[in-house]
Amino acid sequence: MIIILKRNANPQKVEALKEDLTRRGFGLHLSDGTEASLIGLIGDTSSIQEDWLRALDVVEDVRRIREPYKKANRSMHPENTVIDICGQKIGGGNFQVIAGPCSIETEEQITEVARDVKRFGARFLRGGAFKPRTSPYAFQGLHEQGLDLLLRAKRATGLPVVTEIMSTEHLPLFDEVDVIQVGARNMQNFELLKELGKIDKPVLLKRGLANTLDELLMSAEYIMAGGNEKVILCERGIRTFETSTRNTLDISAVPMLKQKTHLPVIIDPSHAAGIRFMVEPLSLAAIAAGADGLMIEVHNNPEKALCDGAQSLTPQMFDTLMRKISRSVEFFQSLS
Amino acid sequence: MIIILKRNANPQKVEALKEDLTRRGFGLHLSDGTEASLIGLIGDTSSIQEDWLRALDVVEDVRRIREPYKKANRSMHPENTVIDICGQKIGGGNFQVIAGPCSIETEEQITEVARDVKRFGARFLRGGAFKPRTSPYAFQGLHEQGLDLLLRAKRATGLPVVTEIMSTEHLPLFDEVDVIQVGARNMQNFELLKELGKIDKPVLLKRGLANTLDELLMSAEYIMAGGNEKVILCERGIRTFETSTRNTLDISAVPMLKQKTHLPVIIDPSHAAGIRFMVEPLSLAAIAAGADGLMIEVHNNPEKALCDGAQSLTPQMFDTLMRKISRSVEFFQSLS
Amino acid sequence: MIIILKRNANPQKVEALKEDLTRRGFGLHLSDGTEASLIGLIGDTSSIQEDWLRALDVVEDVRRIREPYKKANRSMHPENTVIDICGQKIGGGNFQVIAGPCSIETEEQITEVARDVKRFGARFLRGGAFKPRTSPYAFQGLHEQGLDLLLRAKRATGLPVVTEIMSTEHLPLFDEVDVIQVGARNMQNFELLKELGKIDKPVLLKRGLANTLDELLMSAEYIMAGGNEKVILCERGIRTFETSTRNTLDISAVPMLKQKTHLPVIIDPSHAAGIRFMVEPLSLAAIAAGADGLMIEVHNNPEKALCDGAQSLTPQMFDTLMRKISRSVEFFQSLS
Amino acid sequence: MIIILKRNANPQKVEALKEDLTRRGFGLHLSDGTEASLIGLIGDTSSIQEDWLRALDVVEDVRRIREPYKKANRSMHPENTVIDICGQKIGGGNFQVIAGPCSIETEEQITEVARDVKRFGARFLRGGAFKPRTSPYAFQGLHEQGLDLLLRAKRATGLPVVTEIMSTEHLPLFDEVDVIQVGARNMQNFELLKELGKIDKPVLLKRGLANTLDELLMSAEYIMAGGNEKVILCERGIRTFETSTRNTLDISAVPMLKQKTHLPVIIDPSHAAGIRFMVEPLSLAAIAAGADGLMIEVHNNPEKALCDGAQSLTPQMFDTLMRKISRSVEFFQSLS
Repeated sequence: MIIILKRNANPQKVEALKEDLTRRGFGLHLSDGTEASLIGLIGDTSSIQEDWLRALDVVEDVRRIREPYKKANRSMHPENTVIDICGQKIGGGNFQVIAGPCSIETEEQITEVARDVKRFGARFLRGGAFKPRTSPYAFQGLHEQGLDLLLRAKRATGLPVVTEIMSTEHLPLFDEVDVIQVGARNMQNFELLKELGKIDKPVLLKRGLANTLDELLMSAEYIMAGGNEKVILCERGIRTFETSTRNTLDISAVPMLKQKTHLPVIIDPSHAAGIRFMVEPLSLAAIAAGADGLMIEVHNNPEKALCDGAQSLTPQMFDTLMRKISRSVEFFQSLS
Repeated sequence: MIIILKRNANPQKVEALKEDLTRRGFGLHLSDGTEASLIGLIGDTSSIQEDWLRALDVVEDVRRIREPYKKANRSMHPENTVIDICGQKIGGGNFQVIAGPCSIETEEQITEVARDVKRFGARFLRGGAFKPRTSPYAFQGLHEQGLDLLLRAKRATGLPVVTEIMSTEHLPLFDEVDVIQVGARNMQNFELLKELGKIDKPVLLKRGLANTLDELLMSAEYIMAGGNEKVILCERGIRTFETSTRNTLDISAVPMLKQKTHLPVIIDPSHAAGIRFMVEPLSLAAIAAGADGLMIEVHNNPEKALCDGAQSLTPQMFDTLMRKISRSVEFFQSLS
Repeated sequence: MIIILKRNANPQKVEALKEDLTRRGFGLHLSDGTEASLIGLIGDTSSIQEDWLRALDVVEDVRRIREPYKKANRSMHPENTVIDICGQKIGGGNFQVIAGPCSIETEEQITEVARDVKRFGARFLRGGAFKPRTSPYAFQGLHEQGLDLLLRAKRATGLPVVTEIMSTEHLPLFDEVDVIQVGARNMQNFELLKELGKIDKPVLLKRGLANTLDELLMSAEYIMAGGNEKVILCERGIRTFETSTRNTLDISAVPMLKQKTHLPVIIDPSHAAGIRFMVEPLSLAAIAAGADGLMIEVHNNPEKALCDGAQSLTPQMFDTLMRKISRSVEFFQSLS
Repeated sequence: MIIILKRNANPQKVEALKEDLTRRGFGLHLSDGTEASLIGLIGDTSSIQEDWLRALDVVEDVRRIREPYKKANRSMHPENTVIDICGQKIGGGNFQVIAGPCSIETEEQITEVARDVKRFGARFLRGGAFKPRTSPYAFQGLHEQGLDLLLRAKRATGLPVVTEIMSTEHLPLFDEVDVIQVGARNMQNFELLKELGKIDKPVLLKRGLANTLDELLMSAEYIMAGGNEKVILCERGIRTFETSTRNTLDISAVPMLKQKTHLPVIIDPSHAAGIRFMVEPLSLAAIAAGADGLMIEVHNNPEKALCDGAQSLTPQMFDTLMRKISRSVEFFQSLS
């Protein structure tokens, strides 16, 4: 971390700052230029708030050189993390497709979709029991009953299941869930992240609609700092001024995250686009950009879906897409 | 709600849609143009997901005419809501300043700041015991102990207190708190909003960094739908491409929200700017734009503050600002 | 176009509006609902400003049903446009790579790069003679002399050339240029677009940093309305809150533009990412998403480049990338 | 400027970089820390492209300490710039209102509006003859004839006039215009800015919809570097995800620009809001935030306006607003 001092900073206050920093255990590296005087901090600055320094009278600006995340940082862990979920691996060259409906609606629906997506090559079943909805008047999911139906579909097909949690209080209900999803709106629900750091279960962490990649990694760090290092990152579209798509898929997030972190990175093309016809091109683009997996919405009857029907594929469409996905994964593995 | 049908929509499917809508209790208003055929829905469409309709083969687009929020809607409640908190009123011409430190640090600190802000004219004390921090390694607040110190400052000064909640599980600790704040990152923590809808205590709801005004109102609607209609809305800056300010204060939110809703609207200039020198101009702009109050960070020693020191005012600065604020409030009341 | 009237609109004013619209030659389609009364306009509404209607006392809102662009609209021209440039085709299944340095610096530099990119498979040479730079103190390009050097490289290699225009006054200098580029900052320089509509030469139109896809198409429409229908659209990254990449490549723009328009769509991964290591994954993602071509910066000595060196590939890197590009293009053609 | 070197940078390459920088005339300030080695550049770095440095193998990152603008920089020119236009001063405590219609339509219209706005206290007349319109099919302004009508209104009322230029080729037509406006879409039309740097006439420079404040200042610098230091900056709303307002007025731009530069800063509330009822609160907020002036759209018959009628005030509304504006300006002058 470099502290840039003001040009006419009071020398006594600068001295006091240096003493304070030394007392906190940092080595100091001083550099007096004509344009600016700098203090370089030597030591672990991850607990330092730039803001605290910026509040000081003598400080012009503060620049971080090292990222504030540690356990998620690739420089601390050069090898790709591979997460094993019931024998299915994700990350480090292991590509996986998670598929299923937005909401769990009935036993028949979730089990039928589960059978279909399994048949066509998905290795994980997704389905929402707790649904974050903008409107309190919209369908909020089947809650406990929904989780129960999801677990029945798991038993019927053997597919490990991924489902979203919306509150720490519901955690006891997620015992048999294989991967717990944190949705975009809860990416900075820090109390929830801390609780998930205490358990031994993979967490699929979605990027918030207006969060930077560094903030996503800091949220992953919350989970990892608690001891749970099984975090899968998911880009699902960010919010921009463009109105013709529901969100803007930030495809650059894939190579950029891959450089910053060792964690697996997947893409959710269904939420990113919000429109069915874009799921295929965005899925293929994700594979080409190096993603470790996809999360795709499939519904046996999208026209009757209780949520997000416009972006759900029918099982037949999913079948066609999966053929292209598996050929593309194979192709890009041969290319690199 | 208007449903725009595709130009060459299958007539049988259109018929099926009409029957379905009628079965759901809507009146239908049909209009066949050469450019497009429309179906107007008559009835309460707040529970309808546009998305469900967009998923249909025959539907080109869906346009909502009435806003999906009801209890928060000014058209349902033309009078301004005035909220009385321990005898202090906010809204409908009653302007209030909430002031205090970002974090509660020690009994001495919070009590001293409380005395100062009270002396200079603030009518509410703010202070954080649970702090949402981007980094798990940053100071997270004093939690229960912090709430305890805050309540001591309340008893010492008589000021009602405002403090942030981060999880439904902490709700029992907030019994003696006068106004519960929902932070920007939790604006769409719907489980938390639902719980706050069940209690009888004012909620200060901050707009998320990338949330629209309609989404803010839908989050207020979550609380109100549960029965708690004491919601104060707070604009605290949104996230844009601009990098010289911490956030971009959306000052237009004040008149626009005032038109859309009857709820009080306040501004947090401290978080919006992130830099001390901008707190004054943004505070005065907020009053000029018609805000019902301000929430301002004050610290007795900003250079030692454990968080957000760069945007905190000293008590002396706050004194100067309050004189300008009260004269400005008076001036604009005389102007309109 | 649908005009939504206010609930308690003055009947005489509504009558006056209807007469005015009829006088302008529109057919009217009236629909009185309990929630809202609507007027549907029948006829070509592309010259109507929604804004004019919104200014009226009796109007609540205005919704366009048909897009305001005509010549660029796929519904008016279902077949993909294929543009032939000196025998090289682009669009409708013809994929092309445009490559070269950001700026033309010396005859040796541009000719050497031209030879290299041709050898490795590029079919067009790019190079800037007029450079839009944020700072007036930065290198602004070699201007006329630069164009002259570019044309020498064209003659030496036979590659058609693409270069940027920044002012209508420079148009006479572009006689021998094969494709004229309009940069992101000039996407809405309407006077320039009008002039380019009068010539018979392909135009490569880049999307502005904060422009919607519909605005991009309206700018294409400016050129096409003048008679020049040879427009190639280029997505080069938009501006968002994310700071770790120079811009955010909007990969969804490819399938969405393909649905809206018949014009060729290419991607500029170099400007989108701003960092060399991301050019490959973004290039492959563009192909996967269905782009008709790529525009890639290559410099024989990026470390000495006068601009944008950080995102330029060396000829060796470009060679490697081109092998992957041609295999990927082939793969995706076989896939669909 | 600080260059941060990579941790394991090749020492020979670092040496070569140092020599290169020395040859370019910079003093070097070296600082080898354990976390990172830094090179501080001493001298005028405004012509240096960070990008050139980032392209180098050995460079991790580059941080600018001083802003790249010089003539616009307050640190080089601490006093506020006051611009005198036909005896009307703007800046440095001189507050001015510019008013008039979006487009010049007829002699009667522009002269009538001119008389009205003069009577109610505006000191400058605005009116567009060249109109940047998203659609080629929309009214584009009366061009030369419009300028002629504007000058007639000037002669009839004595008000100095402000009007927009869209191309360097039109410059000869602007001889009698008092202030030349550069619109948001042309903020980075650098060829136009250069030409405006060569004349001796005030330029009103609007911020682009997605441009940072530093970019706005760099565009001002283009004009000033050419010798024309009479630049008035105008904030008119930026583009964000919010859809209920046409743009988001960045009110923080006022105090932030005031700190960065000595140039006058005005606000255009009409374009920022896009809706009539918001013009008053945004105008008053601009005054409260410290703006040097306002630019307000007034039309004698907004319902018949050929553009932007929805945001235009009637003369009567303008009268009412001007009374509040002048009282507010007076109030805030007494406050500070």
